[in-house]
Amino acid sequence: MSPVQRVKLIDVAEAAGVHPGTASRALNPATRDRVSPETSKRILKAAERLGYIPNTLARGLRTSKSFVVAMVVPDITNPLFPPMVRAAEQVLTLAGYMLVLTDTDNDAATERRQVEQLRVRGTDGFIIATARWDDPLLEEIADQGVPTVLVNRNTGTHRLPYVGADERTGMQLAVEHLASLGHRRMVHLAGPQDTSTGRERSSAFRQTVRALGLPSSRSLVRVCAAYTEAAGADATRRMIEAGQDVTALLCANDLIALGALSALAEAGISCPEQMSVVGFNNMAMVDRLTPPLTTVRLPLRQIGELSARMLLAEIEGGSRSAGAIQTLLGVHLSVRGTTAPPHH
Amino acid sequence: MSPVQRVKLIDVAEAAGVHPGTASRALNPATRDRVSPETSKRILKAAERLGYIPNTLARGLRTSKSFVVAMVVPDITNPLFPPMVRAAEQVLTLAGYMLVLTDTDNDAATERRQVEQLRVRGTDGFIIATARWDDPLLEEIADQGVPTVLVNRNTGTHRLPYVGADERTGMQLAVEHLASLGHRRMVHLAGPQDTSTGRERSSAFRQTVRALGLPSSRSLVRVCAAYTEAAGADATRRMIEAGQDVTALLCANDLIALGALSALAEAGISCPEQMSVVGFNNMAMVDRLTPPLTTVRLPLRQIGELSARMLLAEIEGGSRSAGAIQTLLGVHLSVRGTTAPPHH
Repeated sequence: MSPVQRVKLIDVAEAAGVHPGTASRALNPATRDRVSPETSKRILKAAERLGYIPNTLARGLRTSKSFVVAMVVPDITNPLFPPMVRAAEQVLTLAGYMLVLTDTDNDAATERRQVEQLRVRGTDGFIIATARWDDPLLEEIADQGVPTVLVNRNTGTHRLPYVGADERTGMQLAVEHLASLGHRRMVHLAGPQDTSTGRERSSAFRQTVRALGLPSSRSLVRVCAAYTEAAGADATRRMIEAGQDVTALLCANDLIALGALSALAEAGISCPEQMSVVGFNNMAMVDRLTPPLTTVRLPLRQIGELSARMLLAEIEGGSRSAGAIQTLLGVHLSVRGTTAPPHH
Repeated sequence: MSPVQRVKLIDVAEAAGVHPGTASRALNPATRDRVSPETSKRILKAAERLGYIPNTLARGLRTSKSFVVAMVVPDITNPLFPPMVRAAEQVLTLAGYMLVLTDTDNDAATERRQVEQLRVRGTDGFIIATARWDDPLLEEIADQGVPTVLVNRNTGTHRLPYVGADERTGMQLAVEHLASLGHRRMVHLAGPQDTSTGRERSSAFRQTVRALGLPSSRSLVRVCAAYTEAAGADATRRMIEAGQDVTALLCANDLIALGALSALAEAGISCPEQMSVVGFNNMAMVDRLTPPLTTVRLPLRQIGELSARMLLAEIEGGSRSAGAIQTLLGVHLSVRGTTAPPHH
């Protein structure tokens, strides 16, 4: 643990059989592309094996970077986020950055205060999972050129780089699956419409229902107050009370689906016999429910990993690429036990 | 977001009707006790309301602190950790500290590398959830007086402050619950014995079984290779193959219990009719299983919160209290659907 024992750059270079200058270039993400991929790989492996710690303190002084990146999540206890956080942290740690985690408790004022505090502290960049469709804080960040990558949710202006899932295809797969089972009367329990996920998923629901020639009306989309179990249960109870004639529920996320399942059970409506239910996200444990939840699986780890890589490129590259890159990763439908043909 | 708009100390003092010096003392956790609790509360409320950001950069220069605290967890996707992380982060953020999250992937070498890197970077202190019973890294940290609080797992030497749950009482409650239902032949699927949780839970199991006058033998404790579903399933399969005559399984954590439930289902052994199962931790979603899991509920949020408070006291106080404080918070048994009287 004492500095004299610490592995030096020259040790890594020697172990990899290269000049120290080459090792230095390979170990710095900003200059890595000046070294051949094979050599770079050999040097990184040697660094890993020897336990080399990049002298980021010195790098920081030279470049006036803090080598601190912050990840802003609405609620780390929501099982959607830990896989993203974990994957981002692994990429950042390997590149010599620290990941500061900030949990905003889904509150815009808390978020602004925390992001401002982190900026005062010299944070190099942000991975933000809390974007709202209209988001003044993120517009300011875009104006000021703060290195930032959005994950999970996008803004309506698309001015910042975004890494997310192909929401629209996910919803389309879910609606088509239910239609192929014979369902015609489906309700979408939508997420809050001030989020891109809420808007994209409900828009794709409407579009797919129309494309399939299924009955469509405004009452087939019921917007939940939040992405929570309680809001999902509440929306489902109101639907049941309204006596809506429906055989399938497409939920905007798995928490809403859990709430829907509770409200259906309360009302004595069996799933999947009397009502099919589809979730969204494939969060941890939903495959362990009885019946296991049919849901849209998002590539959470890849989202976290890619967002960290994009942020590093932005920080190390020092300039924003022209036009913010919008990346949508592929999704899958995991068909499990909560969907079945409707009973007539 | 620009500095000119930022709320100054003098604004907070004015809003609270106090001298700026008083406001400064109240806003610094290290000097807060020099201000009366009522005044301090009024000042903190004013600071919160106005969105005051402590000038920690300047504080850092004056005190050569980084105002960065690192939390080291084995796997953030294990639902045990997010509630602890969230609670610790809230306490630290309010005190003007940033929480760096480090995920060691349960690997001692990765952990050492990451902790060393964070120390080189000047991290003020550590909350560590990855302790092993014999842990050379933590002995070095104790030798060197690095501000550190252990959570979740303790070391055998008890040289560092620890905040955890009363494991022994948790296991005692679980065994007594099963005994009161009429179970006499219980097996403990123990956690790895290089962790304090694994050791304490299995020791308390043996002690309670003896105290109740139940049959006890070495074969009633089966040690799992890891705190995972796969290890729990594996241990359960081996128990079934051995033809062990048993009516209840006490699992060292909920993941092991999930594995046990899968292995029982595979073998056509029904729960709770033919086998009662108890978990440990009450991680998210286990109340949603069918049947819902009977488990020992740990105060995860309080553990996170208290660990952050203790660490701040150590950092701000500047010296370690004589003897490392070992704090065990109370636990509860949540009796749900996986436990029932044995069938004879």
